[in-house]
Amino acid sequence: MQERGQGLGARRADGEASPVAEPAVVDLLGVLAYAQLSAFERLAADAGLAPTLDDERELAEMAAAEFDHYRGLRGRLEELGVDPGAAMAPFRVPISAFHDSTAPSGWLEGLVKAYVGDAIARDFYREVAQFVDPATRDLVLDVLADTGHAAFVVARVRAAVEAQPALAGRLALWARRLVGEALAQAQRVAVDRDALASLIVGGSLDLVEVGRLFQRMMEAHSERMRALGLSA
Amino acid sequence: MQERGQGLGARRADGEASPVAEPAVVDLLGVLAYAQLSAFERLAADAGLAPTLDDERELAEMAAAEFDHYRGLRGRLEELGVDPGAAMAPFRVPISAFHDSTAPSGWLEGLVKAYVGDAIARDFYREVAQFVDPATRDLVLDVLADTGHAAFVVARVRAAVEAQPALAGRLALWARRLVGEALAQAQRVAVDRDALASLIVGGSLDLVEVGRLFQRMMEAHSERMRALGLSA
Repeated sequence: MQERGQGLGARRADGEASPVAEPAVVDLLGVLAYAQLSAFERLAADAGLAPTLDDERELAEMAAAEFDHYRGLRGRLEELGVDPGAAMAPFRVPISAFHDSTAPSGWLEGLVKAYVGDAIARDFYREVAQFVDPATRDLVLDVLADTGHAAFVVARVRAAVEAQPALAGRLALWARRLVGEALAQAQRVAVDRDALASLIVGGSLDLVEVGRLFQRMMEAHSERMRALGLSA
Repeated sequence: MQERGQGLGARRADGEASPVAEPAVVDLLGVLAYAQLSAFERLAADAGLAPTLDDERELAEMAAAEFDHYRGLRGRLEELGVDPGAAMAPFRVPISAFHDSTAPSGWLEGLVKAYVGDAIARDFYREVAQFVDPATRDLVLDVLADTGHAAFVVARVRAAVEAQPALAGRLALWARRLVGEALAQAQRVAVDRDALASLIVGGSLDLVEVGRLFQRMMEAHSERMRALGLSA
């Protein structure tokens, strides 16, 4: 990713976080920790909607993996001498608002949300992680590593859409709503959290680079929609 | 517990499970595994109802502990050469029915359910675990060990009842409903699962001993209700 090194962010040439990045690192760990904690809660609840016990177990495993990630992030905050609760607190309202506005009405919507929502969040954090200190970056990338459950979701959604093609339109619309709500809340966070926003756009407020970031994320989203058998 | 050794169950003098106990052990591990899996899902969902981030984190930790228990029980079933899905399957309907009929309407009801429901299940499994092979018994007792979260629940419920004494009646009624629904589903399981039922009552169908078991469980329940500041 060195070729984008001049674009976003506040990473110094020696790889150390710059002083301005410190509250941003706390924000990044805080938002990621609360995102994992609430993803854990929502996925675990969605497991109860599963049509079969095997599906239920699979989604419960995904949820438990989110909790392990939360634990890792909380541990890193503690290492940095930061109260995890204080670091997460600013993100509780926007992340809860995202989930409340995108409560799945059934099992398939839950699966699409797990897959699409998680992947978009993953892409975003991976981009941002480039501009923090190496120890934090390694942890964030570790948390973001695919837990191997995506294949399960893709197989389930594809099978459902093949069996009942009319589902494709409804689920594609659902995925667009997920993206819209996620962007709305991300916007809200960016306005409230100067440090995090400056981590993303750096001192230069390079809007061209921000545009490219969103373009990369939307391209990855379109690819995932195709993998599900849906149009973006 | 040796003094009750002549009462329930099918344990032989050498401590080995008798042949009749084998399907019962699979049933015991299966019902316990599914109970932990679904407790995990419901507790994690209830964490989303928490009034504060600290409360949310605490309940999420309780939920994650249930998932660890589920993993241990699933592992034991695999060790015994049993498919965990097959062992859990018979208990999915009654346990889900229990949860569906006792969905908490708010945070405090969720806490009382977590505390009371978990403790009653714990008492019951502890009684039954006396009559299975030592390796299974050790695992079950380990799973049932208090994860240290009960004190958190007691403190929260007591504080709420002290601040608003009118809550006591409503929550006491709620706890009675939890017990009633749990017994109704336990009855259903006992009728359907001969092996598990015979594990509890042994070959002798010692109704006096069964009566004592329920009396012990109800006494423990009353003590817990007093700990919460509620009347049983």
